[in-house]
Amino acid sequence: MRSDIYIHHYELVSRFGLNSRSDRTRHKGVLIKIGDGVGCIHPWRELGDPSLEELIEDLRKGRFFRPLVRSAIKCAMVDGRARSQGVSVFDKVEVPRSHATIVGGSERIEEAVAAGFEVVKMKAGRRVAEEVELLNAMHERYPNLRWRLDFNNVLDGGGIRAFIKSLNESLRVKIDFLEDPCEVNDRDWAGIRSLYGIPLAVDRKVEEARGQFTYAIAKPALDDITPLCARAMIEGWELVFTSYMDHPIGQCYAAWCSGKVEKRFYGLEDPVAGLMTHGLFEPDAFIERMGDPSPQWQSPGGTGFGFDDLLEDVKWEKLK
Amino acid sequence: MRSDIYIHHYELVSRFGLNSRSDRTRHKGVLIKIGDGVGCIHPWRELGDPSLEELIEDLRKGRFFRPLVRSAIKCAMVDGRARSQGVSVFDKVEVPRSHATIVGGSERIEEAVAAGFEVVKMKAGRRVAEEVELLNAMHERYPNLRWRLDFNNVLDGGGIRAFIKSLNESLRVKIDFLEDPCEVNDRDWAGIRSLYGIPLAVDRKVEEARGQFTYAIAKPALDDITPLCARAMIEGWELVFTSYMDHPIGQCYAAWCSGKVEKRFYGLEDPVAGLMTHGLFEPDAFIERMGDPSPQWQSPGGTGFGFDDLLEDVKWEKLK
Repeated sequence: MRSDIYIHHYELVSRFGLNSRSDRTRHKGVLIKIGDGVGCIHPWRELGDPSLEELIEDLRKGRFFRPLVRSAIKCAMVDGRARSQGVSVFDKVEVPRSHATIVGGSERIEEAVAAGFEVVKMKAGRRVAEEVELLNAMHERYPNLRWRLDFNNVLDGGGIRAFIKSLNESLRVKIDFLEDPCEVNDRDWAGIRSLYGIPLAVDRKVEEARGQFTYAIAKPALDDITPLCARAMIEGWELVFTSYMDHPIGQCYAAWCSGKVEKRFYGLEDPVAGLMTHGLFEPDAFIERMGDPSPQWQSPGGTGFGFDDLLEDVKWEKLK
Repeated sequence: MRSDIYIHHYELVSRFGLNSRSDRTRHKGVLIKIGDGVGCIHPWRELGDPSLEELIEDLRKGRFFRPLVRSAIKCAMVDGRARSQGVSVFDKVEVPRSHATIVGGSERIEEAVAAGFEVVKMKAGRRVAEEVELLNAMHERYPNLRWRLDFNNVLDGGGIRAFIKSLNESLRVKIDFLEDPCEVNDRDWAGIRSLYGIPLAVDRKVEEARGQFTYAIAKPALDDITPLCARAMIEGWELVFTSYMDHPIGQCYAAWCSGKVEKRFYGLEDPVAGLMTHGLFEPDAFIERMGDPSPQWQSPGGTGFGFDDLLEDVKWEKLK
């Protein structure tokens, strides 16, 4: 008995550009459905992903090898299995706390602090003077708040040094890490694992980064999690699990993966994660179901990855 | 805290060549160890795998992407986790029954029947006249015995038709499938899913085979199992789980994977598997621990994938 693949095109709308490489605010992806199992494919072209059309074509042809397709399939299988058993995937799964992912200025940071976040992750590097001013001011107001700065490689080695130097020293010790501070082929990259005592994190280019970092960003939307954890165990990396700024279904999948990983076995310290990203988008029914962003993960309830009633109303298109 | 990778070179010795493409009887591979977790890498060059040296180099460099390396890593992680908990991976896992994998003549088939096997898998296509004679004679002696014939694509379309025609008709209905009967770019390939009523199976070339088969061979040593099962669910394939004719550790990993797959969810029929291959090799301590080949899987006992005491005596070499 064959199962068909169904897809549903969706669009998420953000109030700001969501990475340092683009000001795009409309973000297209597809939900996929196989049997009762649902997943999502949400490429970021500006970060090197294939186009949505190419990925849908892979799906149509049964080519489940490329990371975004493979993860969507795995998500759908986990989801479908749990739905068929009438259980939530989050039963007995402990999802780590998250930082606030902030795009925008002081108002968003104030909201995050009010919501209980202890760590704020901010994109940086495109408007250096503004960002430095904001950081220094916010640190003065919230001296215990911790920071993660994601540069998406937009600065060069000199630029990143200048950036850090212009931050107050008491703020520097409150920075968990600098993510993708500059291109890993920058001559300033070799030999550093930290910059003025601040650890480095690497997102997409762990291969090229030659171990010059403390934190690797683990993205269940892309990564084959077991080999990645094995790698972390061998190389001594810490893993920061993050969602892909994708559909709430994908956000739930990332949270679930991060909760399922047996960190003690891999010797991982389980740092604060980045699983709380739905607040970056204009609300829709799925996003509202996720509740107000807060550091502690909240299951959307229902079976599988949840949203049972909302998924019933989705208009599905048969893929072949 | 970093974990090191250790390897141990081993050699398995078979009494005959083990596929229709080679008469090689010495088969080299490596056990790998990360923490307490063990896996194996066992390439078959004649079937298109990279060399053992290339795969070890991948391992050394932390490149865990190629199928044989990725599977060895996954095996080691499953194994290590279970060992750290002091439990066998086979607790509560139901491994399907297996066919006998036969290389050689009537004597081996008699042994298999005596051991209780109901299905025999035989390499075929290289000595057609001999093989046809053997099959007809064995069918006369054991009329209920079922057969799986693996041609490793050595015949062309005409050759495979001639082969089947020369088998007694009462034998033909006792053949479960013809595996890789000819190259999938053979002009006789298009449009068939069975040959004289006998279903076809495809091992390595499922992409190229354009759905012209009923059974896909699932090899946990190579395959990413969840996407493969999803594919089977969508395409209506049945999966025959088989070991990779590799070290008993790899054989155990394949058996465990086949037992863990939730066949009912994927709509899989769970045909007889091919997990019993250690009898093809000259005995050593690991192979002896697997017991006499029999259709029913037997756990080697111990923790993880077993062999606790034997692994203590292995001479490990630190990889980096």
